[in-house]
Amino acid sequence: MSRLRYLTSKLAQEIDEELMNSSGAFSLDQLMELAGLACAQTLATVYDREKFRKVLVCCGPGNQGGDGLVAARHLAMFGYEPTVYMPKPGSKDIYQRLQQQCTNCAIPTISTNEELKRQLLPDKSDCILDAIFGFSFKPPVRAPFDEVLPLLNNSKLPIVSVDIPSGWDVEKGPVELKTNEGTTVGDGLNADVLISLTAPKEGVMSFRGRHFLGGRFVPKILAEKYALNLPDYPGFAQIVELPSNSAL
Amino acid sequence: MSRLRYLTSKLAQEIDEELMNSSGAFSLDQLMELAGLACAQTLATVYDREKFRKVLVCCGPGNQGGDGLVAARHLAMFGYEPTVYMPKPGSKDIYQRLQQQCTNCAIPTISTNEELKRQLLPDKSDCILDAIFGFSFKPPVRAPFDEVLPLLNNSKLPIVSVDIPSGWDVEKGPVELKTNEGTTVGDGLNADVLISLTAPKEGVMSFRGRHFLGGRFVPKILAEKYALNLPDYPGFAQIVELPSNSAL
Repeated sequence: MSRLRYLTSKLAQEIDEELMNSSGAFSLDQLMELAGLACAQTLATVYDREKFRKVLVCCGPGNQGGDGLVAARHLAMFGYEPTVYMPKPGSKDIYQRLQQQCTNCAIPTISTNEELKRQLLPDKSDCILDAIFGFSFKPPVRAPFDEVLPLLNNSKLPIVSVDIPSGWDVEKGPVELKTNEGTTVGDGLNADVLISLTAPKEGVMSFRGRHFLGGRFVPKILAEKYALNLPDYPGFAQIVELPSNSAL
Repeated sequence: MSRLRYLTSKLAQEIDEELMNSSGAFSLDQLMELAGLACAQTLATVYDREKFRKVLVCCGPGNQGGDGLVAARHLAMFGYEPTVYMPKPGSKDIYQRLQQQCTNCAIPTISTNEELKRQLLPDKSDCILDAIFGFSFKPPVRAPFDEVLPLLNNSKLPIVSVDIPSGWDVEKGPVELKTNEGTTVGDGLNADVLISLTAPKEGVMSFRGRHFLGGRFVPKILAEKYALNLPDYPGFAQIVELPSNSAL
């Protein structure tokens, strides 16, 4: 079998657009629902709800933040106790609906860094779902996330990242990360687990943790057009674990 | 634990509306995606793809037809070879998009009864997913479905029905079914497997086959308001098998 293709940021955006245009005809609602479900299932596969019940779901301002909101809702359905941290909700109507759905499921939402710091105190959170930056991320990292990334790393909590650990370069991986003002804030999140959606991005080639793939909705014709060489998913699962890079 | 609640047609519609209004805030796209996924997973749980690869997915003109289209797409992703039979596509924009998504996944669609008869010939289909009539069905059964239901029964193929075997009374179960012209066309489909969405309907109390529940998206507050007494779903599954009525 040919090797799984790793995508540039540009190609990931192109495929995402095709999924919603002629080759896919999907709505954003559909894709986010399946993507968020895959994220929740990945976390639930690695961190069982007895030991890691309290999940801090960190959502960015873009589409990945929407995936995070969907994941938080499914995690609540799975018996976890998620808390959403979303300092900058996206402006699209869909974010408001997804936030309302979380509220209807009694999921608390926090938005300030003070609240975040409290949520990172011992016994408040057992693990983190990082849905802050996705495949469209371009440095520098802007406030409040310049403070947020080091806070999350310093918590030493296990981190599951979506698509790319937040702060990593989508193509180059972990690189020294600067704020608007030129301050260095490390090289992005130290993720333990990764869930790549549709196909992995070039920047995660050096990722050494457990790596899952989600997005069992890519039409064969699209997968072939871009030579994605996707692996087979087992049974009727929505995620598949990829061989660890550490074995390479 | 209290007993699972069986819904009247009216109550099922009321809960469906609440899911999309204040208590749920879900979009139809989201609910259909999760419902169709649950249908596909139910079929895949009972009829494995090696022996039952060719699935005839029969879609009605209402929302349940949309669930069927979503299920057909997921079945294709699971490695089945679905064919969609949809003689009367719904008029809403979402049906056109869902049909386009099936076309993009190279799923053939048929629409006439002649095509249906050919599709029911030996070696053309291994099992049927019945997404024709849902919880809003009111007799009499109209053309072309007055011919379709007996055709499907006579095929002797295994049938997985969504919510209620098509032709059954949503509250009374299998009753003598008449066409517009007063001709009797049996008492609905002889389903082998049932997937109830959100909560089972009163009409399936006498159903004796394997019975699954899907719809792991009902907010707790809504489940409590209607005293649904939903069972726990296992792990991060989207469906749960209910104890067989035959054991009652």
